[in-house]
Amino acid sequence: MAVAAALQPPPPNPAPVRGSEDVLDRLVRLMEGDLEACNREIIARMQSPVALIPQLAAHLVAAGGKRLRPLLTLASARLCGYQSGQRHVALAACVEFIHTATLLHDDVVDESNLRRGLASANAVFGNKASVLVGDFLFARAFQLMVADGSLRVLDILSRAAATIAEGEVLQLVTQNDLETTEARYLDVIRGKTAALFEAACEVGAVVADREDAAAPLASYGGSLGIAFQLVDDALDYAAEQATLGKTIGDDFREGKVTMPVLVAYAAGEESERRFWQRTVGEGEIDDGDLAQAMALMARHRAIEATLARAAAFAGEARASLAAFPPSPLRAVMEEVADYTVARVR
Amino acid sequence: MAVAAALQPPPPNPAPVRGSEDVLDRLVRLMEGDLEACNREIIARMQSPVALIPQLAAHLVAAGGKRLRPLLTLASARLCGYQSGQRHVALAACVEFIHTATLLHDDVVDESNLRRGLASANAVFGNKASVLVGDFLFARAFQLMVADGSLRVLDILSRAAATIAEGEVLQLVTQNDLETTEARYLDVIRGKTAALFEAACEVGAVVADREDAAAPLASYGGSLGIAFQLVDDALDYAAEQATLGKTIGDDFREGKVTMPVLVAYAAGEESERRFWQRTVGEGEIDDGDLAQAMALMARHRAIEATLARAAAFAGEARASLAAFPPSPLRAVMEEVADYTVARVR
Repeated sequence: MAVAAALQPPPPNPAPVRGSEDVLDRLVRLMEGDLEACNREIIARMQSPVALIPQLAAHLVAAGGKRLRPLLTLASARLCGYQSGQRHVALAACVEFIHTATLLHDDVVDESNLRRGLASANAVFGNKASVLVGDFLFARAFQLMVADGSLRVLDILSRAAATIAEGEVLQLVTQNDLETTEARYLDVIRGKTAALFEAACEVGAVVADREDAAAPLASYGGSLGIAFQLVDDALDYAAEQATLGKTIGDDFREGKVTMPVLVAYAAGEESERRFWQRTVGEGEIDDGDLAQAMALMARHRAIEATLARAAAFAGEARASLAAFPPSPLRAVMEEVADYTVARVR
Repeated sequence: MAVAAALQPPPPNPAPVRGSEDVLDRLVRLMEGDLEACNREIIARMQSPVALIPQLAAHLVAAGGKRLRPLLTLASARLCGYQSGQRHVALAACVEFIHTATLLHDDVVDESNLRRGLASANAVFGNKASVLVGDFLFARAFQLMVADGSLRVLDILSRAAATIAEGEVLQLVTQNDLETTEARYLDVIRGKTAALFEAACEVGAVVADREDAAAPLASYGGSLGIAFQLVDDALDYAAEQATLGKTIGDDFREGKVTMPVLVAYAAGEESERRFWQRTVGEGEIDDGDLAQAMALMARHRAIEATLARAAAFAGEARASLAAFPPSPLRAVMEEVADYTVARVR
């Protein structure tokens, strides 16, 4: 919120920013029964005779997270009028499993030490377990889809899974590369984040047998996912985050070329560009460099520029819902788009 | 061959041991057109706009490998009289993708430095790329199955994928644990190796629309896979391997509790058990310890005992094919079971 309040220039689709907890809470309340069923499904389906699997999975599940992606599946199905069964619940669990598998593999990949405010699964259980339990959850996600029995759903989610992996590999390739273009950066976040948001929403339309709603919901989810990741990338340089018990500067230390870096680098003078090349480009990072990076971003309003782009995508997400008749659920889903930009964690 | 020649007591199903290259070559010759089509499919389907993906995948594909698992799918389909299409080719590629993904994730897991006689993908490209390209190949495998369109096939292979991950996690849990029972060790190899062999064969029956053949072929593949892994575990302690450019002692250094270790440990006197506890149990390994481990195994005929168990499973694999009328293909598949035990690499 504090970050978003500094937003300048104004976003193309300005929207009243409400308390962000508020919005997600309202979505959770609207989806309450579905979400509880989904949580039960998650617990039931992560069981295995190999005890380490539910132990490690529970480490992430207990950590909570926002359950944003499964909520999107549940909400999309209901927005399409789905009433005839519980397919959306199993597929929401499936979406969360794919997300959790990605988190586990990210832990390995990024050597990150903090995730959702708890020690990462990796730090507690080690690299090997993170890779393998991630693989299990991914396989289990496919079993859930197969049990659902729709080839259309399988097509959407298996394509998303491949796109996620491509995005993650592309992120690896662009690491430390300050010549990365904005278009390529957007390809990264479309893959690593937006693809699952998009699929999560599209699947909701499919279970409701509403092919007409598949494209608008996919568009909603995709734009929402890009906005979400842009804000994530901004928050990694937001001083306020440290006071919330989140680490900041992870991306900086890992040499990730994210939007705030691209903006500051493009606008920087020669000495600043040398700074970015030494730190993000070559990974030579000293004490005080993160503070310097944040100062340069402030100078060039790089966080504001990133959030403005996020707001534009959030506006597109909002607009995609115009295809649906007004309803309390549609209103909350619209506000989720605003929340994505306004959130502070 | 040299190892198997020392086999004592004789295997329950003794079979004339032919030149092992010979047998696989003959299977390849029988499946020649199918295998070429499968190789083309593999190359075509590992493409991605993200260039690192085919680069890294090609590193493994170029390394060759035996293509044993896709050959099993191709051969199983043909044994069932499949003639009406190319489904077996795409699914064989899918099986190889799952296998390759597992290898890539194993590279991360085991910090192994040598795979198939080449530097491992991990050593060349790093942990991160191995995890993520593995994820891509796994997702791509599911896309191939979805394109095939059979929920039965999807069920078999998604179940296998979950079982593989469970086996790998169980292996991690039993690592350094000398109290592992033989039954638990068999659970590990059933998961990490036999599950994919089993599924690879079963799928061949399904594409041929021969449900009657699904169980015998699954049984053939499952038994073959256990035999294959038992021999792998024996070969890791076979001095002859070093002369073939393979490392030996990887399992020993990683504290893997495999059949040769279990046999030597169970038969060992007090001082020997202390040796195993220090090395495999606690990972304190000095120069000369691998030689000592091999000497203790020789003393207790642990390699022979492991190979005898492998031969028993190979015999079961052979017997499973009795359900099929005699044919040149059946004969070669029977000999593949013998080859699995007789192979030296």
